Amino acid sequence: MGQVRVAGFGVSLDGFGAGIEQSLNNPLGKRGPELFQWFFPTKTFCSMHGEEGGTGGVDDEMAQRSMSNFGAFILGRNMFGPVRGPWLDDSWKGWWGNNPPYHADTFVLTHHEREPLVMEGGTTFHFVTAGIEEALRLAKQAAGEKDIRVGGGVSTVRQFLRAGLIDSVHFALAPVVLGQGEALFTGLDLPALGFSVTEQRASEKATHFFLERK
Amino acid sequence: MGQVRVAGFGVSLDGFGAGIEQSLNNPLGKRGPELFQWFFPTKTFCSMHGEEGGTGGVDDEMAQRSMSNFGAFILGRNMFGPVRGPWLDDSWKGWWGNNPPYHADTFVLTHHEREPLVMEGGTTFHFVTAGIEEALRLAKQAAGEKDIRVGGGVSTVRQFLRAGLIDSVHFALAPVVLGQGEALFTGLDLPALGFSVTEQRASEKATHFFLERK
Repeated sequence: MGQVRVAGFGVSLDGFGAGIEQSLNNPLGKRGPELFQWFFPTKTFCSMHGEEGGTGGVDDEMAQRSMSNFGAFILGRNMFGPVRGPWLDDSWKGWWGNNPPYHADTFVLTHHEREPLVMEGGTTFHFVTAGIEEALRLAKQAAGEKDIRVGGGVSTVRQFLRAGLIDSVHFALAPVVLGQGEALFTGLDLPALGFSVTEQRASEKATHFFLERK
Repeated sequence: MGQVRVAGFGVSLDGFGAGIEQSLNNPLGKRGPELFQWFFPTKTFCSMHGEEGGTGGVDDEMAQRSMSNFGAFILGRNMFGPVRGPWLDDSWKGWWGNNPPYHADTFVLTHHEREPLVMEGGTTFHFVTAGIEEALRLAKQAAGEKDIRVGGGVSTVRQFLRAGLIDSVHFALAPVVLGQGEALFTGLDLPALGFSVTEQRASEKATHFFLERK
């Protein structure tokens, strides 16, 4: 069986996993992109977007690892898009264009039903209204022996952690303070949930922490 | 004029600056010492305690910097000791024995008056009941051209930060999650207070972040 992983999840020194005021123009919230300065220049990120080049080194190794061996993805609805409430039509197809970087079945948590959306490159978005356990059950079916990545955002990661459904976590701590945004750790007792830090890797742009559950 | 600095302040990945249940046997709270594994083995720490040896490298450099150029210190009462409420007698003289590592005037915030306590090695503990601004005024008088270190604990550091009285901060982020304890960042908007991260240095035992106020 594969693992259920949170991977390459950016967080600020003061514990925010996204900025405030997420919108069409700010998918990660205000100042959110500062959490991913370690990721954007990497070879891995460039190649995900069909571009040549990019940097190597620790951050690229971490980026590679954060995108490897996944057979399915789970996303919170706000990570899929800025639309709130019922789906008015099928026009919103995610932030990522016609060929999203998932290349696998991707389960979007929502309170509002919608037909599956088949994209180019192997990504199909499935809309799950029955909660996180059901999304995980479906993702496990789809992933087979491979891992499942709980992609975010903050609220989704916290829900899965609290429910004891995550096996391993990789946080990329960026050298910034945001002051406001979506607080990742508040009220979350990771040791009580069985987690401890098992590995740390630093670059100039992030310190990468890996946590495993006993 | 010297700067008012927080320096070498240990914090966990999940944002705790001390563990729970501080007591005579746990001055840093339960699991609190895990925040200082970068510090304890260093040459600087050993020499502060009159011992030979210790490790060099990034952490020692950071430890050295966190103890340098101070003309006065300010401590919260709980950092001075486990006694709560009125001082019943003069028997408690700090956690550090007869020769504390401050070697300068050290101002202890308390609601309960007490005569100054002259220790060996140049440390005098002064007990200040008139609040943080008054403690800082006295510390500035004592420090002259040198810096003032606000030593902690978490509550004291947060009070000084919120009041806009700190010029620079050095957090040493330890690769541990505590889950419970004294939350350093909750409700603290460091960018709104003028702070940004200006330097980052990593070792295997901590990532050191330096923040300056505009």
